[in-house]
Formats: sequence, C-alpha cells, structure tokens
Amino acid sequence: MSSRTPIVSPVVPARGRLRPLSLGEVTITGGFWAHRQQVNATATLAHIEQWLEGEGWIANFDLAAAGGLPDGRRGREFSDSEVYKYLEAVAWEIGRTDDPALEDRFRKVVARVAAAQEPDGYLNTKFGRPGQGERWSDLEWGHELYCIGHLLQAAVARARTRPDADDGLVDVARCAADLVCTVFGPGGIESVCGHAEIEPALVEFARVTGDRRYLDQAALFVERRGRGVLRDIEWGRSYYQDDVPVREATVLRGHAVRAGYLSAGAVDVAVERDDAELLAALATQWDNTVARRTYLTGGVGSHHQDEAFGDDWVLPPDRAYSETCASVASIMFSWRLLLADGAPRYADLIERNLFNVIATSPSAQGTAFFYANTLHQRRPGTAAVDGEVSPRASSSLRAPWFEVSCCPPNVARTLAGLAAYVATADDEGLQLHQYAPAAIRTALPDGTAIALDVETGYPRDGVIRVHVRDDAAAPWTLSLRVPAWADGARLVVDGAAEPVTPGTARVRRAFRAGDVVELHLPVTPRFTAPDPRIDAVRGCLAVERGPEVLCLESVDVAAASEGRVDDVGDVRLDPAVAPREEDGAVVVRLRRSVVPDHPWPYGRPDPVEDDRADDNAFDVPLVPYHDWAERGPSTMRVWLPISEG
Amino acid sequence: MSSRTPIVSPVVPARGRLRPLSLGEVTITGGFWAHRQQVNATATLAHIEQWLEGEGWIANFDLAAAGGLPDGRRGREFSDSEVYKYLEAVAWEIGRTDDPALEDRFRKVVARVAAAQEPDGYLNTKFGRPGQGERWSDLEWGHELYCIGHLLQAAVARARTRPDADDGLVDVARCAADLVCTVFGPGGIESVCGHAEIEPALVEFARVTGDRRYLDQAALFVERRGRGVLRDIEWGRSYYQDDVPVREATVLRGHAVRAGYLSAGAVDVAVERDDAELLAALATQWDNTVARRTYLTGGVGSHHQDEAFGDDWVLPPDRAYSETCASVASIMFSWRLLLADGAPRYADLIERNLFNVIATSPSAQGTAFFYANTLHQRRPGTAAVDGEVSPRASSSLRAPWFEVSCCPPNVARTLAGLAAYVATADDEGLQLHQYAPAAIRTALPDGTAIALDVETGYPRDGVIRVHVRDDAAAPWTLSLRVPAWADGARLVVDGAAEPVTPGTARVRRAFRAGDVVELHLPVTPRFTAPDPRIDAVRGCLAVERGPEVLCLESVDVAAASEGRVDDVGDVRLDPAVAPREEDGAVVVRLRRSVVPDHPWPYGRPDPVEDDRADDNAFDVPLVPYHDWAERGPSTMRVWLPISEG
Repeated sequence: MSSRTPIVSPVVPARGRLRPLSLGEVTITGGFWAHRQQVNATATLAHIEQWLEGEGWIANFDLAAAGGLPDGRRGREFSDSEVYKYLEAVAWEIGRTDDPALEDRFRKVVARVAAAQEPDGYLNTKFGRPGQGERWSDLEWGHELYCIGHLLQAAVARARTRPDADDGLVDVARCAADLVCTVFGPGGIESVCGHAEIEPALVEFARVTGDRRYLDQAALFVERRGRGVLRDIEWGRSYYQDDVPVREATVLRGHAVRAGYLSAGAVDVAVERDDAELLAALATQWDNTVARRTYLTGGVGSHHQDEAFGDDWVLPPDRAYSETCASVASIMFSWRLLLADGAPRYADLIERNLFNVIATSPSAQGTAFFYANTLHQRRPGTAAVDGEVSPRASSSLRAPWFEVSCCPPNVARTLAGLAAYVATADDEGLQLHQYAPAAIRTALPDGTAIALDVETGYPRDGVIRVHVRDDAAAPWTLSLRVPAWADGARLVVDGAAEPVTPGTARVRRAFRAGDVVELHLPVTPRFTAPDPRIDAVRGCLAVERGPEVLCLESVDVAAASEGRVDDVGDVRLDPAVAPREEDGAVVVRLRRSVVPDHPWPYGRPDPVEDDRADDNAFDVPLVPYHDWAERGPSTMRVWLPISEG
Repeated sequence: MSSRTPIVSPVVPARGRLRPLSLGEVTITGGFWAHRQQVNATATLAHIEQWLEGEGWIANFDLAAAGGLPDGRRGREFSDSEVYKYLEAVAWEIGRTDDPALEDRFRKVVARVAAAQEPDGYLNTKFGRPGQGERWSDLEWGHELYCIGHLLQAAVARARTRPDADDGLVDVARCAADLVCTVFGPGGIESVCGHAEIEPALVEFARVTGDRRYLDQAALFVERRGRGVLRDIEWGRSYYQDDVPVREATVLRGHAVRAGYLSAGAVDVAVERDDAELLAALATQWDNTVARRTYLTGGVGSHHQDEAFGDDWVLPPDRAYSETCASVASIMFSWRLLLADGAPRYADLIERNLFNVIATSPSAQGTAFFYANTLHQRRPGTAAVDGEVSPRASSSLRAPWFEVSCCPPNVARTLAGLAAYVATADDEGLQLHQYAPAAIRTALPDGTAIALDVETGYPRDGVIRVHVRDDAAAPWTLSLRVPAWADGARLVVDGAAEPVTPGTARVRRAFRAGDVVELHLPVTPRFTAPDPRIDAVRGCLAVERGPEVLCLESVDVAAASEGRVDDVGDVRLDPAVAPREEDGAVVVRLRRSVVPDHPWPYGRPDPVEDDRADDNAFDVPLVPYHDWAERGPSTMRVWLPISEG
C-alpha cells in the first residue's frame, strides 16, 4: 500500500485483512446518517465551540500563553482534551465539506493552542506552573497524556485531510509527542496515564509521520499497564486496567471508555508489530465483553459509580450507564479488529452502537446530548435549563453541556468521519459494512476502478440496492454484511434472488456498468429475549426492527390507553401478539397491570393475576430508542415485562 | 415521667405512646444477641480502639492539643466522629457491664479529646488551623457539625449511664453544643451540615441537660434543610436531603445514612414540639420507603455511586449497597416512631435490620466487617489482607477496617445498647418488641412492679416463653409483637392456645408469680416472592425462616452437587418443592441450569428448557444471610431464579 496515495481515514494500519477507504472515496449522500452529518456540521460544531469559549476552556490556552493561569484556569483537569476533540471533529469536517468558514475557525483555535505550548513541547493548562501540580505528578488522575493523545488525534485528522496546511498543528503535536517519548521512553518514567488514549494516538501519529519511535512508545505504554504501576484506589486498579496486563486479560473491565481506548491502541500496536498473540488476546476480550457485558444497544458500562463494566451479566437497564463515549471507544476498538480480521461481527457491533447510542446521544437539533444512556427511565426527568451547565451525567433528558463534557465533541468527531466505516477494500474487491445511501469511487490494487452508488431507505427500509457504474475488465468481489439479526435475508442479482445467512454475502464477477446487486434485509419488527443469566431483565422482551432497538415511552402509553395508564411501569407486554407495523410505527399489545400497593413489598408467592378484561388490553406504538425523550419528560422502557396471563 | 428516675436509654422522649425502659431494667441473658453483645464487648471494642490508634485518628487530637496538625493529620475529614462513636459504644458498654478496664480506656481517650477543644468550644481536628480550611467553610462536605453530633451522642450515653462521672465529656459536649447554637442560631449562619447527625444529637442533648436551646437549634436545622441552602452537586441536592423540606417530603431519598439520621432527628423535634404535622410527614416517608425502597433484609441504599436510595423499585440484589450504617440509621428512625406511635410495623423493621444487616456486618469473631451488604455476590471475592486497611466499601468479604470506617463503631454502639429495643412500657403495661432470653424488671407509673423472664431459643426456635415473677395487685397488659411474617402464630396462656394475627397480641390480667405466657411463632422456612415491580428480582423467590433471610452459597452448591455445579449462577430453584428443615439446616431443591454461551446474549425468544433429568436436581442447604462469607470466598444469592420446567 505504501506506493499508493495516502489514505485519508482515522485509522490506517500498515497491514490487515481489510484496507480502509479514503474519506474522499466514500460519500454518504442521503438518508439517516447524511442528515445526522448535516446537523453535526451546521449545528453541533458551532454549539460546541460556543460552549468551549463560554466555559473558558479555549481561553485557558490564552491565559497559559500569557503566563497566567492558576486560579484563573477554568474547567476540569482534562478540559484541554475537549478542545482537541473539537479540533479533530472540525478537521474531519473540513475534509468532508471544505467549508472555508470552518477552516478559518479551525486555524484560529489552533493558533491559540499552539501559543500555549512550552519550548520543550509540553502542553497542558493544568500542570507545571507555579501554583499548579508538577508535570506528570498525578498520572492516575491528571490526564496529561490523555490530553496529548487527543491533541495527536486532532493532528492526525489535519495531516490526513490537509497534508499541506501551514497552521502548525502537526508540528505542535510532534513536539508534544517527542516530549512524551523522551519522558516516558526507556530510562524515563516507567508508568502510564490513568486514562488510556495516548496509545492509539501515538500509533496513528507514527502512521501519519512514518516515525516508528511513536509506535514503540505506544507499545511500551500498552505493555506496562496491568502490572500495578498506578496507585491502588477505592475501585481497584481495574478501574484503569492496571490490574492485568493487556495480553493476559480475557475480558474488558473497569472504566469503559478507558478500557475501549486502551483496547483500540493495543490492536494498533499488535497490528503494526505483527503481534498475533496480543491481537488474539484482544479478540477474545472483545468476544467475552460482547457476549456477557454489553447492553442490547451495544452500549457498555453498568456502574454509575466508576463508569465501569460490571461483572458478567450485570446489565441493569435502569442503572445502565452506557456512556456515549464508551460507544465511541467501542467503535474504535471494533473497527480496528474489523480491519485486522474482516469478521462481520465487528461491523455488527459498530452498527448497533451507531444506531442505538451514537444516534441517541444528540438531540434532533444537535445541541443537547445524553452523556449516559439509560435503558429504563423510571421517573420523568426535568429538562436542563437552557444555557446552564448540567452537572449531571445521568440526567434523563439531553443537556446542552456538562461539567465533564467529553461526549458532545466525541459524537461530533465520530459523525464527521462516519463515512470511514461504510466500506473497505482488499485485493479481491470491496466490502460494504454499513448501509446508507452512498457514492463509492475507488480502485483495487490491480487498477480495477470501482464505482458504486448505494441506494437505500435503510434502516426504515430493508432493501439495499447497489448500482455498479463502471465496467470491470476482470472479476472482483462485492461483499455485503448480512447482520446477525437478519434471518431470512435475500440477495438479488440480475433479478435472481437467493437466500443468504447472517455473515457475509458475496458476489464475484466482472461487473458491468448498470449491474444492480440488491440485499434484502428483513426489517419486520421482532421480539428479542435476553440471555437468562441477565438477571435484571428476566421475564422481559425487547422489540427491535432492523438495527434499531425500540422503546416504550409513557407519553404514548397515556395516549393509547386514553389516560387509563400513564406510566411504563403499569403495563405488561402480551407476548402472544407479534409486534407489527401500523402507519409507519411499530405497535405492540400491552395490558394494564397495576399492582396493588402493600406496606411491605415481599410476601407469599401467590400468583399475581393480570386483569384479562379486554378493555385492559391496548395497542401502543414504540419509538426508536434513538428518538426517545424528544417529546419532553417521559418514563421509558426498552425491556418490557411479559404479561403472565 | 419527670418525677421518675431518669431513664437510661439512647432515646428518651418527653412524650409518646410508649416509654423506653432503662438499660438496667432489661438484660439480654442469653442466645443469639447475648452472644453478639459478648463478642462486641470482648473483641470488637478493643479491635476498634486498636485501629483508631493505629490509623492515628485518636492521635489527631493529641496533635491538635499540642498545636500541631495540618499535614501530620491522618484520616478522612470525618475521622473524629469514629472516635466519638467508639466512645459512645464504650459508654453504653460500661453501663451494661461496669468493666473497670473499659472505664479506664474510656477516660484516657476522653482526656485526649478534651485537650483538643478550643477555648470557645470548637472541636475538630480538620478545620480552623493555619493550613486548614476555615471553620464552617465547607458545610457540604466538611462534616464538622456531623462530628459534633457524634460527640454529643457519646456525651449523652455517658451522662445517662454515669451521671456523676468526672471525666468531663459532658462538659466538652456542652461547650461544643453552645458554640453550635451561637454560630448557627438565629442571626448566625443560616445553613445546615451536609451530613445530618447534629439534629438527633442536639435533641437528645437537650433531653439529657434539660436545656431547650439545643432542641430549638435542632428544629432550626430540620426546618432549614430542603430549601437549597447547600450547594448543588453532581448527584443533586437530594443527596443531602436539601431538595425538599422535611415536612413536605413523601419518601426518603439521597444518601441513605444521611436520610436516616435526619429522619430520626426530625422525629425527635416533632415529638418534643408536639408537631403532629411533621410527625405525620415522617411516618408517611417511613411507609413509602419501606413499601418501595427497602431490601428484603431491611437494608436500604441501591446506589454505590452516592450511597443513596434509588427510585421506587430500584432494588438490584447484585448492586445492593445496603450500607451497614444505613441500617443503624433506619433502626434509629424506626425506634423513634415506635416510641411515638406504638405501631408494631416499626419493630418489625428493626428486627429485620438487626438479624439481616446488623448481625451480618461483623464477622463471627467481631473483628471484620461488611460495609456494604450485597444480596448477590457474582464472583468469589478476595480476602482483605489482615492488618491492612481495605479501601473498598463494597468488598465481598468482611474487612478489618476501612478508609471510611463508620460501620464498625456504629455496629458496636448499636450492640452495646441493644437491650433498649427489647421492651417498652406505658401506663397500661409492658410491650415486648424483640425476642431474646431476657430479664425485665420495671414498674408501672401506678407502682405495679413487673418482673418477667423471657425464655426462648429464638430465632432458631419460635416459642417465646414469658415467665411472670411477681404478683400484681391490679391488672396490667402484656403485649407481644406478632411479626408480619408470622401467619399462624398462637398465644398460649395457662395452657390454652388461641390463634393470633400479625400485629400485637395482648394479655391483660392481674398477673401472678408463676404465670407463663407463650407466643408460638411459626418459623417453618417459607418462600417469599417480590413485588412484581421490583424488576431486578423478577422470576425469583427468596427463602426466609422466622426473621432471618437465608441465602445460597456456592460452597454448598458445589458440595451438594458433588462438584457438578460450583456457582450459584448455574442453578435454578424448584418452586414446587417447599423449603424444609433437615439436620438443622433449611434445604431447597435446585436444578442445574447451565445456559449455553452465545456470541451475542440477545435473540429470538425461544423457551429455554431446563434439563429435567433427575440427576440434575439436588437438595442444597441454605445458610442465614448473616452467616454468609464465613467460609472463605464464595458466590452467593438471596433471590433464587425459579426453574421454568
């Protein structure tokens, strides 16, 4: 690949089963995700910048440059990183749309950041000055390396999308990365950052600069962790994955974002160093985490306390933390494994996270966000006051900003670079992983030009139509992911349909312009049951439709029952009536099930009889989980207890 | 009551439906609780003092007295309070056993505390000195008033048990209380402490000193809270009950220990000021909290994050926090309502907490403790290293001490004063609330002497035999609590049995020496089902026997299945086979139920068929929950999923 034009994408490994396409080679042209990208570009980015300015987090760099700071500094210890994530998002967006106004904003912020860098490359507004903690004095909680990691990722985005830009961000990043290698390299501080992030950033920076030193440093960080190099804390060293070495671990644990970022960086290290043992360990960790520690939405993190994974099967819907950033991290991890190995299950999990967490966090307007993503809201929440910082990560309504505001810019950078996840190539052909209306123009190593237009109403509609626009001299293979949920899918080529099973459907031929390949995915709504070991949702079913998880909101219960029931806690699902579509909505049959109150809620196991009177059954529309809480305070359930009757 | 000898008991209200007996009037003479008191006296108190010394928390007072401290100070901001709780426990214990060695230890610690008091009465080793925060500068988190509250409670115990002692503790407390009234009284700081505790302490100190000023100050604190006087925080002001005024609230919320202490103090204020509205509000809060926010064990607190109540029905067994101290607080609250109102449900909850939380926390040896009390342990834990501070409140095995070590001395003071909860009197007679072998000697206001000896093997045995030792000239009423679980109870008087229903059983007569009244409580093991709204335990049953909650430990599963199953997660309960007693143990029928692993734990709702082969069914003994984790690391469940077969 080295002789080719550099690939413009967030992750560009030197080897692997699949090759990412450049963002210029894939354009999402319409539909669900194009709309999300549009909202991100026109509303979210400006919203984020306004908050970064309003909260003084960009101004911290000005203060630092002017020699000021200590008590004038604002925000949490990691606020620099939000500025970097914003810059990364803007860099990808400039690459996508070439918006000159955005380019201007980008350069102005970069200049302010650059001015704060110290001569030796150190860059952090929270440490190292009189009245502040010393540099690297608080590796557990200081987030200095974490912040530099996000700086590097912003620089990577810039270097890839505008390799000739003279704004200086890449130089700033290089100086900081060099300092990290000096301070934490062989003979230096033999420790790691309490929050992983520098690891994938350094590998990508090595990829972009061609300087192997950064890769070696990332490998050092990955190998050091898990040996008790950080202080023990209340939640144990597992919080920052310092309990078990990465290559010995069997499952993700501890803080879910930390775990995901670390895993992503460890895959990067494994791939670049051709370390099959490490890669296999990470694949096992992914498998076990997905099989036992992941919510139906793809979200992870069962503990509010430490934003962490729980033990196997601890997946309470009402106390789901499922931090938005943990799904960003999960996508980073899954995407790297997909590139390395090609297995469609990684793209399945990415899709699940995209539709059910990444799409859930931002409001329709793109200016308010969920930080945590509960699967069961028991009390109607209170709206965040507009323009006020919500200190609460777990509020039940989207908030414009948070004291810890990692999620908004993390969603923004993911959406800006979303086209990266749509398709890949290998020597044999092209693989479609995510389905959206898209234009794909690329070439195989043998020179075969590929031009495809994807036409689909997915996920509303299950038909994905791939139009081939170029004649090919030789055969190549078009691969389409058949999601694990898509039992009964069909592939239609030249009008001939054949059943395909979940996994990968392939068409190999010398394609001609005008060829059409259709994948028909059954998006009939379906009941989904949990593994019986997930205690918290025993006796419940969820409803899914295609890749979307649906949910029940109290506002719909009240309307459908004509006010007889107004809470999602007072109904049960009739499992004998399959979910069906009606006027574009998925409808289920519920029964009113109001349990009498008792002074003590435990007693003799007499059967509770649901009222079977017909007028206690009614049909209620569900909404896609990503659309919930858009109609004011509401109670909500993804998992619906089954009527016993 | 004013003309009588002062009552020696932790809570002595000026009015109320029931009158506490003096600790000298009730002696627990044997059985379950006498053994616990003995362990507390001979092992726990010395263990606590050793840790208080070892951790430097008593030495902090020495440093303060010598004019030192700032960086030499050790422990958390509230460590002073642990010393006071220890003193309170010792004071009750001296009252109980008159142990001269304990008296000597008590005086020595008191002298060190007293030496640290400042001339104006201020006493706290964490604030007010150069290099420390200013006094009262951090009401949200500083715990200064909380610490003084525990100082007052220690002084109350001392004043009641040794009214003529010259150790000076009561004077120290009085100076501190006076300062509190000056600083926080009318015209002073119009705020409250982030952790309630000063409220019940001030009322009791008013009761003991006769100085109404302390009561008025407590009332001020109670009335101020709930009006947003403290700073808003991540978890909301509900954390410290500063979201809704006490008299307007309908349920307990926020930090469970704070909520319980506040409620106890508010009952005290309501009773002393004859404030029926406030008292009724608190009774409603108690009712709603018990009906919807309390674990089967009586424990409270569903969140690890903020040690707080969850919403209604959020009672996850695997993430139960159920802090030991929250049950101490619950007993304080319930006991005050019982004295005020006489309803047996308050004594029911006290009993539940005593047998299933207070008895669970300390190890059999009395030198290790549970801080949190989970109802479902999914992974065998790791033993705390002996002699090392366990930083983890939620460890799965008892630990000798904690960084936040509120629970050990709280258990100690509760056990030392336990006899207080056994019985009360009113003008008509005597009420037995808790059942233990006991000697009771008191007199009614009309001079009727009452001498009773209670003989029972409770809770192992359900027969409570009350021997009357004195002739009475006039009739009086002996009331016996019939616990809510005791369907089928019988009262036997003069050999004649009559059925009695849960609530209160009464015998009124002119008792003669030699009379025997027997209460027969059915302690046959029973299945208990949860309210269907408690999602986390849907489809499960628990097993109880008398007041004891039982649980399943993996060590017993492995033994009974001859190694075919070794985890409580791999079995299901056969609900068709009633729990039965066998060789002194309660035995249930389980089925092996190993679920096949899937890459994704959600799928089509196909019925899972349990293996019905006979050799997959086996009988396993349960253990009382308070005895769990005494045989090394183990997995454990209180709620057992039911076999579907």
